[in-house]
Amino acid sequence: MANPTAAMLVIGDEILSGRTRDANMHYLAQELTKHGIDLQEVRIVSDDAPAIEAAVKALSQAHDTVFTSGGIGPTHDDITADCIARAFGAHIGIRDDARALLQAHYDKSGLELNAARLRMARIPDGAALIDNPVSTAPGFTLENVHVMAGVPLVFQAMVASVLPGLTGGSPLLSQTLRVDRGEGDIAATLSAVADAFADLSIGCYPFQINGVFGANVVVRGTDGARIDAATTRLAKELDL
Amino acid sequence: MANPTAAMLVIGDEILSGRTRDANMHYLAQELTKHGIDLQEVRIVSDDAPAIEAAVKALSQAHDTVFTSGGIGPTHDDITADCIARAFGAHIGIRDDARALLQAHYDKSGLELNAARLRMARIPDGAALIDNPVSTAPGFTLENVHVMAGVPLVFQAMVASVLPGLTGGSPLLSQTLRVDRGEGDIAATLSAVADAFADLSIGCYPFQINGVFGANVVVRGTDGARIDAATTRLAKELDL
Repeated sequence: MANPTAAMLVIGDEILSGRTRDANMHYLAQELTKHGIDLQEVRIVSDDAPAIEAAVKALSQAHDTVFTSGGIGPTHDDITADCIARAFGAHIGIRDDARALLQAHYDKSGLELNAARLRMARIPDGAALIDNPVSTAPGFTLENVHVMAGVPLVFQAMVASVLPGLTGGSPLLSQTLRVDRGEGDIAATLSAVADAFADLSIGCYPFQINGVFGANVVVRGTDGARIDAATTRLAKELDL
Repeated sequence: MANPTAAMLVIGDEILSGRTRDANMHYLAQELTKHGIDLQEVRIVSDDAPAIEAAVKALSQAHDTVFTSGGIGPTHDDITADCIARAFGAHIGIRDDARALLQAHYDKSGLELNAARLRMARIPDGAALIDNPVSTAPGFTLENVHVMAGVPLVFQAMVASVLPGLTGGSPLLSQTLRVDRGEGDIAATLSAVADAFADLSIGCYPFQINGVFGANVVVRGTDGARIDAATTRLAKELDL
């Protein structure tokens, strides 16, 4: 049976302007691979309501699960929660359960739960809260979309809150062969082995180090014995 | 006048599986920002023909320019060129101009221009070649889509070949204020200043260092004097 599929939507002008290098996508990709969920698509859009709404609708329809990152803080540029609610036609407002979490957190830290911080209690009706052990303000799950923070520490904590509840598949396994020859020399062999092991994915990722070309050949699949067999055959045919 | 818009399509299973961390997106984002081109969207899809075709069609229609990265090498998993051709209904085959470049390159290096390497001369009819000073095999431009390699060194060289020919806009300028307070404390001020400077974008990017929360406030726009004015007012109102 095929593994469940997922998509990710990253929301943030700071990534598209080149100011910040995204870290959450790479983290989520690794976690989903371990969990047997097939990350099939990532989109990065700016802090623009129509773009966020259109992307979340398209990804929610095309994939089993969607993860979003960014735009759920207290400032004026945090518009993700409202966009997700609109995408699903859900009402959004300050919810008592989220407000209670924030109230307890700010009471303890002696800070005021002011109007800006209360924005973080805006949760769509029908959504389930996602636990945030780092900084309390919750994410939420609406339909098949998990809405999470952009700050990497908080994003990672929220992924840890969400993942155990998701149905995973067979973890994706891989073996890598490093070949110190150009791709063009090994392409015919790779193609023949890929045909013989159609249940696996065989990728070739070229590199160049000190002017010398080589490639990492990565054999991926869910059946370790088949991966072993394909890797052994590749190593033999490539004289490794 | 608004700056031209761009999108990027990254093609690669290795990024979606978490094996490789993408570097090209961050590089392109920075280059486009300098050049006054507004990167509005990035999509990452796997080595899957229907996904590549659908994404390139959607991005080509929605943006002035599209850049792709990955999948134009000599191996069986390099399917980008054929997908782009199909997306635009263009014929694709081994083109004499690209073949001549490769023949000269491999003659010089004493390697055989075999069938796999000849795949890199598959260029759609009507496309213009993109110069590759690193490893010769060209990218190409078809309609408003620039098709480039995934290897970062080659990708960067191709960006350098393409960018001077594109109409840029006003470079996006920015100033950053670091605030050692939580976002919730400064949100009301940011919102008021953002309203007063509607021609600028004011973003707030929280961080957490050793358990202390702070935020970088980034003021972006194309008019340096306006950015100065907004930044000065923010610094004053935030007591920095």
